[in-house]
Formats: sequence, structure tokens, C-alpha cells
Amino acid sequence: MSGDAITQAAGSAPGNAYYFDELKVGQVAQYVREVTDADIKAFAEVSGDHNPVHLDEAFAAEHTPFGGCIAHGLLSASYISTVVGTILPGPGSIYINQSLKFRAPVRVGDVVTTEAEVMELIEKRGFVQFATRCLVNGKVVLEGEATLMPPKR
Amino acid sequence: MSGDAITQAAGSAPGNAYYFDELKVGQVAQYVREVTDADIKAFAEVSGDHNPVHLDEAFAAEHTPFGGCIAHGLLSASYISTVVGTILPGPGSIYINQSLKFRAPVRVGDVVTTEAEVMELIEKRGFVQFATRCLVNGKVVLEGEATLMPPKR
Repeated sequence: MSGDAITQAAGSAPGNAYYFDELKVGQVAQYVREVTDADIKAFAEVSGDHNPVHLDEAFAAEHTPFGGCIAHGLLSASYISTVVGTILPGPGSIYINQSLKFRAPVRVGDVVTTEAEVMELIEKRGFVQFATRCLVNGKVVLEGEATLMPPKR
Repeated sequence: MSGDAITQAAGSAPGNAYYFDELKVGQVAQYVREVTDADIKAFAEVSGDHNPVHLDEAFAAEHTPFGGCIAHGLLSASYISTVVGTILPGPGSIYINQSLKFRAPVRVGDVVTTEAEVMELIEKRGFVQFATRCLVNGKVVLEGEATLMPPKR
């Protein structure tokens, strides 16, 4: 990352979020979370995605190149929502766009570090563009871009 | 949509999924789910995204243009994973890419119809490209594209 990570917001917007004019290119925020078996089961319930690739070790070993279960890609993606929705810009932010490129599997026990870095401030629309990535042991497992509308004054 | 919706898969791959050579441009699958308050709370727990836009009616009414809480955008996105991971191509499928354009808010009580339509079969890589969309009362609330690797024989 290109700047110091923000792990706790210090802005003055509601819930310590950042208003548009408090955002700067290069700001980075991080969320770190270990993926548990319980999280994968909970994600399957809330989404309805019971693809056995995520839930059935024998099936995943036989029918995928991964040798066993992997977490839902959208579970890792949801951590990006956590970074932009709770840290930077933070509470009150609204999602506009997100792109997701799944680069490598995430497994139970993996500690996922999810980062969002401010890349561009789109003055005309009041939007902010982020580079987003999830890493496990320093390896990018998911990357893409996000467009957010920060909270208004 | 351009074809009859598949609501239950009839292919011969594991778990009634579709192999690459069973997929055809124009095939469509659907998943229909009502968003509940419990689902939003569960999604906040599993993701860590406690943005009050999703959880605090008073905050959402004051700080957003929506007049109240909206569901996490990534919750609707997770229904796309459900379509491609459990119906078409179905069990055993692996996510490669997903793009998400959030068009309109989803609220508690909304019935979200999520569709994935086969747009292109990428022979060289064995990937399939889908158009994906979520609708509420016939209005597109989320749209984008997905690339999947169907299960192998």
C-alpha cells in the first residue's frame, strides 16, 4: 500500500466517517478477519449459496483443483463493503460500483486482510474511486475497484 | 430475459449442475428471495459491515436520500453467487470475475429476483460469461457481468 493504513477513522462525519472533502488520494483503510467454518455456513444461509464447493470437503476435493472447500468469493467481497462502509469513507457511504477479480482461493483459517485505497476523487459527482484488494499471507486473492458516494454534510 | 427461466437444474453434472458443453447462449436461471431484517443483521455479522445505513433507521433517514435503511449491496450480489453456484452452471462452479453496478436501493420486505443469463461460451479457457441482474418489482436494482468456470467432467 502507498500510505499508512487507517484502522480507526478519525474524520468528523457521522460515526467518524470521512466527508468527500476530507478524502485524499493515497489514503488506505484495512479490515482483517479470519475466515471460519461458521462464517462460511452463515454466508451460505444468508445468500442461499449452498454450492458444495464451499460446504462439502469430499465434493470439493473431487470436483475442484483446490483439494478441499473454499470460502465463497462473495464473502471476501463483503469485507470490502466493510472497509468502505465502516472505516473509509465509513458510516453513511453508499455503494455505486464494485468489480471483483477472484485470483486465488480462500480457505477456512485464512486471515484475510482487506484494503481500500483512494485512487481518484470525482468532484463533479461527489464520488470516490478506490482500488480494493483482499490478501492472504501477502498474496492477492481478490482485487478490483469500487466507486462510493461518501456521506454528505 | 431471452429464454425460459431454469428454476431447477436438469443437467448431468454433479449435483445436477451443467458442464461446459451443456451450456447454451440464452439459458437463464433465477433465484427469488425476500430480504428480511434478520438477513441484513446476519449479513452485517458475517461481513463485519455494520454501516448504520443498513441497521439504524434514524441514521439512514437523516444521512441518506433513501428515507430509511437499505440492504447491503453485497447481500443482493450474494444472490448472484447463489444462481451461478447452485443452479446454472450450478454445484462445482468456480467464480472468476463479477462486476456490480448498484442501480437502486433494496429494502426490508423487497422480493429480489436474481437472474443469470448465458451470454458467451469462452471455449479456449472453458469459461462462461453471464449477464447478471437483480430486480425488485421488475426494476433493475443491481446489474453486471459474471465469469464462471463450470464443473469439469
